[in-house]
Amino acid sequence: MEQEAAISSRITIKGTISLLMSIIENDQKRVISLGMGDPSAYSCFRTTVQAEQAVTSALQSGKLNGYAPTAGLVMTRKAIADYLARDLPYDLTADDVYITSGCTQAIDVALTMLARPGANILLPRPGFPIYELTASFRNLEIRHYDLLPDRNWEADLGAIQSLADHNTIAETAKKLCIPVIADEVYGHLAFGGTPFVPMGVFGSMVPVLTLGSLSKRWIVPGWRLGWFVTTDPCGTFKQPKVVERIMKYCDTLGGPPTFLQAAVPQIIEQTDEAFYTQTLEQLEHSADILYRMTNEIPALHCPYKPQGAMAVMVKLNLSVLEDIRDDIDFCFKLAKEENVIVVPGVAVGLKNWLRFVFSVDPPSLQEALGRIKLFSHRHSKIVHHQY
Amino acid sequence: MEQEAAISSRITIKGTISLLMSIIENDQKRVISLGMGDPSAYSCFRTTVQAEQAVTSALQSGKLNGYAPTAGLVMTRKAIADYLARDLPYDLTADDVYITSGCTQAIDVALTMLARPGANILLPRPGFPIYELTASFRNLEIRHYDLLPDRNWEADLGAIQSLADHNTIAETAKKLCIPVIADEVYGHLAFGGTPFVPMGVFGSMVPVLTLGSLSKRWIVPGWRLGWFVTTDPCGTFKQPKVVERIMKYCDTLGGPPTFLQAAVPQIIEQTDEAFYTQTLEQLEHSADILYRMTNEIPALHCPYKPQGAMAVMVKLNLSVLEDIRDDIDFCFKLAKEENVIVVPGVAVGLKNWLRFVFSVDPPSLQEALGRIKLFSHRHSKIVHHQY
Repeated sequence: MEQEAAISSRITIKGTISLLMSIIENDQKRVISLGMGDPSAYSCFRTTVQAEQAVTSALQSGKLNGYAPTAGLVMTRKAIADYLARDLPYDLTADDVYITSGCTQAIDVALTMLARPGANILLPRPGFPIYELTASFRNLEIRHYDLLPDRNWEADLGAIQSLADHNTIAETAKKLCIPVIADEVYGHLAFGGTPFVPMGVFGSMVPVLTLGSLSKRWIVPGWRLGWFVTTDPCGTFKQPKVVERIMKYCDTLGGPPTFLQAAVPQIIEQTDEAFYTQTLEQLEHSADILYRMTNEIPALHCPYKPQGAMAVMVKLNLSVLEDIRDDIDFCFKLAKEENVIVVPGVAVGLKNWLRFVFSVDPPSLQEALGRIKLFSHRHSKIVHHQY
Repeated sequence: MEQEAAISSRITIKGTISLLMSIIENDQKRVISLGMGDPSAYSCFRTTVQAEQAVTSALQSGKLNGYAPTAGLVMTRKAIADYLARDLPYDLTADDVYITSGCTQAIDVALTMLARPGANILLPRPGFPIYELTASFRNLEIRHYDLLPDRNWEADLGAIQSLADHNTIAETAKKLCIPVIADEVYGHLAFGGTPFVPMGVFGSMVPVLTLGSLSKRWIVPGWRLGWFVTTDPCGTFKQPKVVERIMKYCDTLGGPPTFLQAAVPQIIEQTDEAFYTQTLEQLEHSADILYRMTNEIPALHCPYKPQGAMAVMVKLNLSVLEDIRDDIDFCFKLAKEENVIVVPGVAVGLKNWLRFVFSVDPPSLQEALGRIKLFSHRHSKIVHHQY
């Protein structure tokens, strides 16, 4: 029953957004969502012609309508192994890679494989709520450590040490040291000078499970092509029993279409550096707009200019607002009055913050932030009459 | 630990087949598999041009690269609801349908949604091993009832009554009467006069969960487009808490690509009756060949001519064989000596039977059965010298 309560209390980012969408009444004003990390809605963010063509060719061949092995086509596993190994001090093989339905399914594989009776998992706060939801379904106890806004969102390492006990990730941790799940769905989407360093670089120190997908870097989140990878040169996840268990779990999963898998080697090979660069420039440009315009609003404070990914946390200064109770109240009233969707921080574990997505085309982003500014002024303790 | 043992002892059909494939040594002879219900490998079994075109158009539109709702696109859920309701005495709505990565993922949804501590599930023997595997991962105790070969594989209803206790599918059964999971992945693939009757027809008597996919009827098992459907006019699965739980579970799943989902309404609408008829004729023709040729082999006995689906159980008569220990021994030696793959009955729960798939083009099927005949003669107690 506790489990049930835990699950029903958990709401995902998608769930929060559809709740906010459902209260929009005004159909005169365009709805702008800074909710989901999915830029594909904007024509300036479109995947490559080569990627779409590779999938089309695979589909039209008629030779890829049949089942793939449940862990994925070997050619696809190999292509992803090589792609990830470019940034690692050691090689990966096809056997390290399991193909999944998006990074979401990779999360389920990781958590289910590590779950044991009595096990717990340490999760960051703020974080991605699918982890909490999946952990609940898989009977993993959840313990949170903070990401510290005053230290550029660094993990609170002291807290991690006090939370982890001999039961953390349970027997697995005992047997295999402490495995780290590295969710790199935003891998390579770093800009502003800070390079992307995959966690797998530290794979010799600690066994790493790397999760990722085509979704963000190739701007195809709806393709659901993800991976679960053992970046683990010491081979702790290569023990026959562990591999057998992962393979069997893959047997129950479904996984992505064969023709889509078959296109992956070409997609990786044929994507120009220019496409990546352009995406990063677009994201950085949007991040700059967001950072600047947000900090012009007295009720909001964005402590750091984003240096990667597609979303940023913004602090809500309730003391300057007249009739806004908390972050949830802010988001509901904003949706109702301005047709703008942003996610309340509480949905990702941080009360009275907001989560703004900036993978949006600049005119829409400016329009949204303009409306947020009007909204904030309207609800401020001192009404500025010029607004 | 018991759970672990249960999982490692379970082997899927795919797992069995790859084991058999791995022992093939002779590269001079073509490998013919009567293992997997996947006819797409044969050019005479190809999905419709319209289906491939619908997916291509959706993909090439560039408007369907983004996330779908986790339960699936509403248009897709609606199309499948209407498709299934054609054969039911009541309507289904989009809300009844959850889109999954093939029927495999629909099985996981059904079992996970019904699992409770101490719950058990009644499964048929012979059956589809993914159920056993998924049940093990979801901590459901497995109880088997027999399908009776002497009664044309009817379920042993007496056994079902003695196996089911108050704990069968646990609290859910108590609350909701006894839900039935109807795996209709082979729905409509009935021939030889016996019509296909979906279990949902009895949905007013007992809540039914219907599982299905495009895989078999449209010959696209590798597309991984399946569904989990509450064919339940009394609304027992429509209670807000149940719906919320299913929706949240869908949030953790991944699901099929958006562009593929978007093509489903067109695929269903544009498929000619002639395509279905042709598939059925091909399957019936292959079933006839299989039935006739199998029963010409003294070591084998196929009790009934198949009247649907893509596979049939064949009894192994060990008493006429010289040096074949059991069904597993038969299959391993057959793979090694003849490059023909068939699944040992034990893999689907029936010792000393064999499972032959007949969704194979006639020349390959005849060739395979010819080799099986030679093999059986070679291993018979009385060697027929004409062979």
